[in-house]
Amino acid sequence: MTMERTVRVELGPQSYDVHIAPGALAELGATVAALGSATGAVVITDSNVGPLYGARAVESLRAASLAASVIEFPAGEVNKTLATVDSLLDDLLAVAPPIDRNTVIVALGGGVVGDVAGLVAAIALRGLRVVQCPTSLLACVDSSVGGKTGVDHATGKNLIGAFHQPGAVVVDVETLTTLPREELCNGLAESVKHGAIRDAALLDFIEAHVADILDCDAESMCELIGRNVAIKAAVVADDEKETGNRAHLNFGHTIGHAIEVCVGYDAIRHGEAVSLGMIAANRLAVSRGLMASADANRIERVLVSLSLPVRRGGLDADEIWAICQHDKKARGGKVRMVLVGALETVAIHDDITAADVAMALGALGEE
Amino acid sequence: MTMERTVRVELGPQSYDVHIAPGALAELGATVAALGSATGAVVITDSNVGPLYGARAVESLRAASLAASVIEFPAGEVNKTLATVDSLLDDLLAVAPPIDRNTVIVALGGGVVGDVAGLVAAIALRGLRVVQCPTSLLACVDSSVGGKTGVDHATGKNLIGAFHQPGAVVVDVETLTTLPREELCNGLAESVKHGAIRDAALLDFIEAHVADILDCDAESMCELIGRNVAIKAAVVADDEKETGNRAHLNFGHTIGHAIEVCVGYDAIRHGEAVSLGMIAANRLAVSRGLMASADANRIERVLVSLSLPVRRGGLDADEIWAICQHDKKARGGKVRMVLVGALETVAIHDDITAADVAMALGALGEE
Repeated sequence: MTMERTVRVELGPQSYDVHIAPGALAELGATVAALGSATGAVVITDSNVGPLYGARAVESLRAASLAASVIEFPAGEVNKTLATVDSLLDDLLAVAPPIDRNTVIVALGGGVVGDVAGLVAAIALRGLRVVQCPTSLLACVDSSVGGKTGVDHATGKNLIGAFHQPGAVVVDVETLTTLPREELCNGLAESVKHGAIRDAALLDFIEAHVADILDCDAESMCELIGRNVAIKAAVVADDEKETGNRAHLNFGHTIGHAIEVCVGYDAIRHGEAVSLGMIAANRLAVSRGLMASADANRIERVLVSLSLPVRRGGLDADEIWAICQHDKKARGGKVRMVLVGALETVAIHDDITAADVAMALGALGEE
Repeated sequence: MTMERTVRVELGPQSYDVHIAPGALAELGATVAALGSATGAVVITDSNVGPLYGARAVESLRAASLAASVIEFPAGEVNKTLATVDSLLDDLLAVAPPIDRNTVIVALGGGVVGDVAGLVAAIALRGLRVVQCPTSLLACVDSSVGGKTGVDHATGKNLIGAFHQPGAVVVDVETLTTLPREELCNGLAESVKHGAIRDAALLDFIEAHVADILDCDAESMCELIGRNVAIKAAVVADDEKETGNRAHLNFGHTIGHAIEVCVGYDAIRHGEAVSLGMIAANRLAVSRGLMASADANRIERVLVSLSLPVRRGGLDADEIWAICQHDKKARGGKVRMVLVGALETVAIHDDITAADVAMALGALGEE
């Protein structure tokens, strides 16, 4: 059995492939060349990932006879801003040879790089093609697929951005081996989420391979990422612009996002917040008679086995509720939450009250 | 005969109507409401147009039970920058009641407002719907239709932007009556261009109604704008993202754009540069045996009758050539020019040499 996988994201003329393999970065140049008419590529990366994998990306591009340059910006969510985009555009418009509409942007890095470089690609010369090369597990299983790009604003996360589908996604699972353990776990929360909303067999797989996954075993990672990408691809193909069922991917994110705002983005990882958000949402789903306690308990056990948090004291229900009301996904002031019933059965609920949120949060405070 | 016209831009699910009528701003609220699910609108305008028509737009929106606010930025091409977009996003994210994904942006003003507000709409909350309300003739016949948005960069015009189709376009020809004569003529160059590349009957109409057009007679303006929008709509419907024949709209723009860069954007209007660019392109077309001298002479007569320039001394052919090579539309260093053969017959030529450009420029220096 080969470890390599290719998952197709079906979006009509904007369809693209996600290549997953150990060492896949060596194929980056061929992938960019296969898009057609590209004469050069510009790699956008950050100060963490650039020194590790920038040269490997450039080498592969040049081996495919493509002009290649690298632009780096300082790593960190704090730099996911329009000011960084502005500065990257300055750099991009100054590279030699100069870019043209056939230039391809390569987004090499974690979620921040993918979001920022994706937005740069979306608005440079009114849209350049982008190849996403995610190097964090979170980016591999989630943000690199689906075309969402964006930066944060003083008033909220991801408030500025665009839908800009990549021309291809290249996942080199070897790049994950340099991730700190907490970063790996950070990505696994979205993986559990995918299992809960669309694929109970993925939960089976995670339960059976916890140790291999946490060891970043190449074969397990290819399988894990392949399954996750297939789920994300199906959801995105069904609803590219999030006017309907793509919102199912927000399972765990309404309260999770509010927790991030409440405790501060630098005090909790996204996956950790989503883990807590799923626990809270499941409490509400169980209380509404939608979800069996056994399923809620199972999801909790999986999260615990992946070192993800399932309890968090000291959260103020009124504050969380107030933040939920200002969520980007709120419509006309109504708070919307995604609740899972039986596994793989999901619905968006827009009748969420302050009391519901307080009750859901109760799940996070228990011993 | 009613003066009112509606032209449909056919783009599948992104299709939209262009409403043209005297007093059409009074229908803005109904137009926004007809898009569906809008609870509010934010009017983005500039310091010239806001004081003249901002209140009228807001009144119409509120009459349709929509929350309405106005955001103004300082008028002028010099403010067509990412910094202005950044500042408008700050304002937009601070309006009360807060915006959500159903909020509609109204771009009220000339080409700069349409481009800037269109880009703000394209990237706020990953894309809000926009209604374009052009108030300059150039914006009415050209930039408000087709979905191009963008801002300038230190290294060139419109280098940053997005394709973001409006949900509707509302053209109130009464707003054109406050334009200075030179601004009206500025828009007429694109109109002559449309006639040359797609509709010789439009040239007949302009020739027969020069005085009415320059007087901004409502009936003539509705007819003129309706014909132009129909041409633009057909071109855009055929090739939304400018991968093919949409480039025909660049007739007069390769050398025209180079002239703007050469003499400075503040020293020449866009329409004036395009007028000169068409004269130069026609010289090359005639020399290549593509265009009859009689047609070239006719286009020149029409431009002169509209007070548009057809001669310009002191241009340096080497400098113009160098600028052409750095055009955003150049591919792999090749200079591309649109040449008209018989009227309505157009082709893109990518074999343009420095000598061709020098010869074409010769047409601008003759007595």
